[in-house]
Amino acid sequence: MSVEVISETKAHGGRQLVVKHASAATTTDMVFSIFLPPQAETRDCPMLWYLSGLTCTHANVTEKAEYRAACAEHGMIFVAPDTSPRGPDVPDDPEGLWDFGQGAGFYVDATQAPWATHFNMWTYLAEELPALIAAEFPADMTRQGISGHSMGGHGALTMALGLPGQFKSVSAFSPIVAPSQVPWGRKALNHYLGPDETTWRRHDTVAMIEDGARLDELLVDIGDVDPFLDKELKPELLEAACRDAGISLTLRRQPGYDHSYYFISTFMADHVRWHAERLR
Amino acid sequence: MSVEVISETKAHGGRQLVVKHASAATTTDMVFSIFLPPQAETRDCPMLWYLSGLTCTHANVTEKAEYRAACAEHGMIFVAPDTSPRGPDVPDDPEGLWDFGQGAGFYVDATQAPWATHFNMWTYLAEELPALIAAEFPADMTRQGISGHSMGGHGALTMALGLPGQFKSVSAFSPIVAPSQVPWGRKALNHYLGPDETTWRRHDTVAMIEDGARLDELLVDIGDVDPFLDKELKPELLEAACRDAGISLTLRRQPGYDHSYYFISTFMADHVRWHAERLR
Repeated sequence: MSVEVISETKAHGGRQLVVKHASAATTTDMVFSIFLPPQAETRDCPMLWYLSGLTCTHANVTEKAEYRAACAEHGMIFVAPDTSPRGPDVPDDPEGLWDFGQGAGFYVDATQAPWATHFNMWTYLAEELPALIAAEFPADMTRQGISGHSMGGHGALTMALGLPGQFKSVSAFSPIVAPSQVPWGRKALNHYLGPDETTWRRHDTVAMIEDGARLDELLVDIGDVDPFLDKELKPELLEAACRDAGISLTLRRQPGYDHSYYFISTFMADHVRWHAERLR
Repeated sequence: MSVEVISETKAHGGRQLVVKHASAATTTDMVFSIFLPPQAETRDCPMLWYLSGLTCTHANVTEKAEYRAACAEHGMIFVAPDTSPRGPDVPDDPEGLWDFGQGAGFYVDATQAPWATHFNMWTYLAEELPALIAAEFPADMTRQGISGHSMGGHGALTMALGLPGQFKSVSAFSPIVAPSQVPWGRKALNHYLGPDETTWRRHDTVAMIEDGARLDELLVDIGDVDPFLDKELKPELLEAACRDAGISLTLRRQPGYDHSYYFISTFMADHVRWHAERLR
């Protein structure tokens, strides 16, 4: 594996890197950002994954989410991958919309043409990128947490449920919790996985819990004026599934907050601290 | 005066607004952002002005500078104006570069054609925008501080020196301190104010101090790997002028930091606290 450091910038006493590498999983170049707190100069540190939402690259969270001060305080590495393969040879939404295709990989391995060639974000994030990070950076891979926003909240929850033991702490901002039941998710899963909805269940948080997958505990923040709350997010479905399964869910409906990075940045330090406590 | 609230978003317990209004000073529409901390819901709050650098609008600092948590903690309003008039009828750099014209107003009232019609950022910020904010927002105008970055650091210092008593606290990130002596400044002042360099002195921090303008004290952070340090910023000229004038300058050369918002965001909370202590 070889990596190209596109940029390295000192921030909050640590180093904010943007890194490019050739991915075998997606057969494209992929870009991610990684923040190394000052503690990482002298020892391996726990690591928080942050999976981004529709349309985002690594850059949105890196520039807007205000995680570096908290990560420097707690000695936490923060990794922000891209949301899909990209490039002129990568297929994109046939409708020309922003909710599918490039920028909208939905954290699955696609099985359907023309998507299956490149859209393998599950394997990229479950196997390839962790191996690259373990080889190249001072991350303690026995202490990984995962979070994400919206489509990335879906990614964080499904990866934590689907890879038992890999993540010791899990949280999400405004996650899509039941993609099989909402427009964004149904469009994406139908394209990527095909019309047999039984194949969708292992990429649907609520269905995975119904089918027996378990987490110990889970922190979710969601704004109560989020414009996607009722149509796409449906946190009440996660509440019901966790209640039935005995999963300890802390769901905070934050009054007056929307779906934006103004919301995420407000509660990011809380999430970093929550993960740090569980990754000690 | 009438204002149009373009967006209002809850963040860190307060409200981040972006506001548009017709400006008499620039004879264009102008856009600024203003963060109202939670304390502003029930009382008038002190206010920190932040003047941005070359190419920036209100948006760069609003999205990237990580000021809201500190402003919410200290009950501080944060105002971020644009850096120039803009629009298809506003003239721009004849060379097509980014260091002059739109996005580069240099916080002066231009006297030369074709700039004098619109490029009146001094009057806009010294008179028009404060009056608008006093009328529309819960700001305690007896407790104003000012800061800024690069060209905006120049703006903050020259406004504080040129408007005695208006600002009770002054700081800057990576300021241009002697525009008459550096390429960015000489290009801009020559275009806006004409070739008679005596007219430049009241828009040049070092010259203003040499000519008798005074501040009580001043906080300046600057990165020691800032690529513009030696050619455009020249902090040693500010150090010498303050020393000769008996101005209390706290100049911190921050090791490993550059000119970017990663640098600014690292030290923003320090600056907000520094202003808050002086605006109590």
